[in-house]
Amino acid sequence: MLLEEKIKGSIRDVVDYPKPGIVFKDITPLLADPELLRITVNEMVNRFKAQRIDAVAAVEARGFILGGILARELKCSFLPVRKVGKLPYTTVAEKYSLEYGTAAIEMHVDAVKKNWNVLVHDDLLATGGTAAAAARLVKQSGGNVAGFSFLINLSFLPGYERLCREFGVNPDCLVTY
Amino acid sequence: MLLEEKIKGSIRDVVDYPKPGIVFKDITPLLADPELLRITVNEMVNRFKAQRIDAVAAVEARGFILGGILARELKCSFLPVRKVGKLPYTTVAEKYSLEYGTAAIEMHVDAVKKNWNVLVHDDLLATGGTAAAAARLVKQSGGNVAGFSFLINLSFLPGYERLCREFGVNPDCLVTY
Repeated sequence: MLLEEKIKGSIRDVVDYPKPGIVFKDITPLLADPELLRITVNEMVNRFKAQRIDAVAAVEARGFILGGILARELKCSFLPVRKVGKLPYTTVAEKYSLEYGTAAIEMHVDAVKKNWNVLVHDDLLATGGTAAAAARLVKQSGGNVAGFSFLINLSFLPGYERLCREFGVNPDCLVTY
Repeated sequence: MLLEEKIKGSIRDVVDYPKPGIVFKDITPLLADPELLRITVNEMVNRFKAQRIDAVAAVEARGFILGGILARELKCSFLPVRKVGKLPYTTVAEKYSLEYGTAAIEMHVDAVKKNWNVLVHDDLLATGGTAAAAARLVKQSGGNVAGFSFLINLSFLPGYERLCREFGVNPDCLVTY
């Protein structure tokens, strides 16, 4: 069986979460399967190990789980991207759109060094709002957006095309719905 | 230089965060140092690799960063412990005390299998409130609390003694202030 099929077999649909009409892709059964998770992350690493990656910028909170492993395996820095007020030191912030209104995410001001190649990671690509905001923070801090790594792409939402258009790189996604 | 000294050298004190009078231990410079982070997590793994560990229960959000690596290296399940409303499937919840009032954390109802040996992980041990709540969730779900793994112990707060007393195991902490 292909890895994509195995991963899909381990993702649980939760109906009406976080609100009515949404079918949430629950990755906790995959996280609970050590061998499948091992080969899943190995494949994520393989997609980027030929490039120079200086840091993985991982989006709070689910992005921290595989992001930490990615940084370790790529032998690069781990750089947390968090909701406003959650990082202790001086930060830079970037807004992104929600269904109603806006929210913002932050990165430490000293997190990205000049000309660093940064891989942006989250578990799921939907509208691409938070990933785009994270990537803009990387660029504002003097870094290059080396790529995007997601476990899941929801292709019925515009995130994939949006990141391609705004940053000129094709997001890497292990499974697509 | 001892590993504890190296780790302490990479932790940044942030004064008056999250509120006046608190000196916050910022681990982001450690996360940004791939080689030091590698040997740090290797040491965390070494402390438990002789035991049978079936799952790492990691506390949101900073606990997810090293918790994911710990689970991979110990070849066991990763089990997220999250704030109320953040887990999509059916959950069990446990309250813990804050300075004023209470908060609660949750675990998926199917996360811990009967008689599993579960290692509870977070980055920092302070009052021990969330770690104790996570450990109670493990026990309620039919698991055993195999241990606690923290990067940092704030020994001027009662968390260490509290976990020893309530669960009968000495928390493992790489550095102590």
